[in-house]
Amino acid sequence: MDNDQITLLTGQVIAQMRQRAIPLGISNRHVHLSAMDYQRLFPGQPLMVKKALGQPGQFAAEQTVTLKGLKGQLKNVRLLGPLRGQSQIEISRTDARLLGITAPLRLSGDVAGSAGITLVSDYAEISLAEGVIIAQRHIHMSRLDAAIFGVKQGEIVNVEIKGTDRPLIFGGVCIRVGDDMRLELHIDTDEANAADIGEGKPTARLLLTQF
Amino acid sequence: MDNDQITLLTGQVIAQMRQRAIPLGISNRHVHLSAMDYQRLFPGQPLMVKKALGQPGQFAAEQTVTLKGLKGQLKNVRLLGPLRGQSQIEISRTDARLLGITAPLRLSGDVAGSAGITLVSDYAEISLAEGVIIAQRHIHMSRLDAAIFGVKQGEIVNVEIKGTDRPLIFGGVCIRVGDDMRLELHIDTDEANAADIGEGKPTARLLLTQF
Repeated sequence: MDNDQITLLTGQVIAQMRQRAIPLGISNRHVHLSAMDYQRLFPGQPLMVKKALGQPGQFAAEQTVTLKGLKGQLKNVRLLGPLRGQSQIEISRTDARLLGITAPLRLSGDVAGSAGITLVSDYAEISLAEGVIIAQRHIHMSRLDAAIFGVKQGEIVNVEIKGTDRPLIFGGVCIRVGDDMRLELHIDTDEANAADIGEGKPTARLLLTQF
Repeated sequence: MDNDQITLLTGQVIAQMRQRAIPLGISNRHVHLSAMDYQRLFPGQPLMVKKALGQPGQFAAEQTVTLKGLKGQLKNVRLLGPLRGQSQIEISRTDARLLGITAPLRLSGDVAGSAGITLVSDYAEISLAEGVIIAQRHIHMSRLDAAIFGVKQGEIVNVEIKGTDRPLIFGGVCIRVGDDMRLELHIDTDEANAADIGEGKPTARLLLTQF
């Protein structure tokens, strides 16, 4: 094969890879805890793995807590592991209304000045001054995938959902690139319901043109 | 003004009217009752108007019921008036999951073979074999608006939501034309949350090209 042939084939392979369906990850409400907050809620308990998640090293834990807001509470909310530098509680707008919490739309990790909440375990009840966010929709991807799609860390893109009775295009989707990341679109339950993911055969594709 | 000038101006006015923002109506879970089911639940009670709705003649009633499914219940669910030929309960996918009901995505009025439910008032509890749907997103409009937008009853269109941190394009939006209808996009709470309507300054526009 000469160089021209290789260039041609490579171009075709990359064009196909850019059209590839993006695996969907629907995030139900969940809790990430700092080591300190975990020890306050589950003193002396090891954090137990229940199920591995789509992103390498991430897992759903056996432990759950109750979220308590001013207006309501949500029980059996799962902890995700591993523990983090800062506690972060991710809920949907539906959850926020039920709890009576005014939570901002934020990227994961950006919790400064976010909403407060009370967390309850079998052992303790703790109040956090901040940490509650509604997660901005985002796509995790490796550096190689970012190069293939031609997108950068922090870029805002559009993703088309087809194959359901509620097709749509999500704008405001943030690209998150990491060596340990696997290609996956993360949306919350409100967003999944708005696209009727769960019914039909949904496929997600990155739109490489603006709308 | 000669005829050419009138044609030119008319064209410009229509082009502007096609770009007009569509008022947003967010439907929380609600109940339409047949006269018979109403009498079973509220014997001898007049249906009382609490608040007029966006569509002429439609209103939120003072009366509320509890929805009871296999897994959970939702209290204080508002009746809308006037009474209809058939009872119809409109919920979101979030509600369906909480209630433990498998409700189909349908246009209003298309309840044959839809999900059953139990309704509870202060006076009675009745079980319906069908009537529970998740409403397909739709736009109400007059015949004149349909002519201006160049769309037909039952046509499926796309609507762009801008001005929030979760911009998106809703596909699968059904056009509903009626002499007594006023221009309004109807979406449910899951869809409103996915677009972050309620935050920011959302505007909805009909997209006259396919995506």
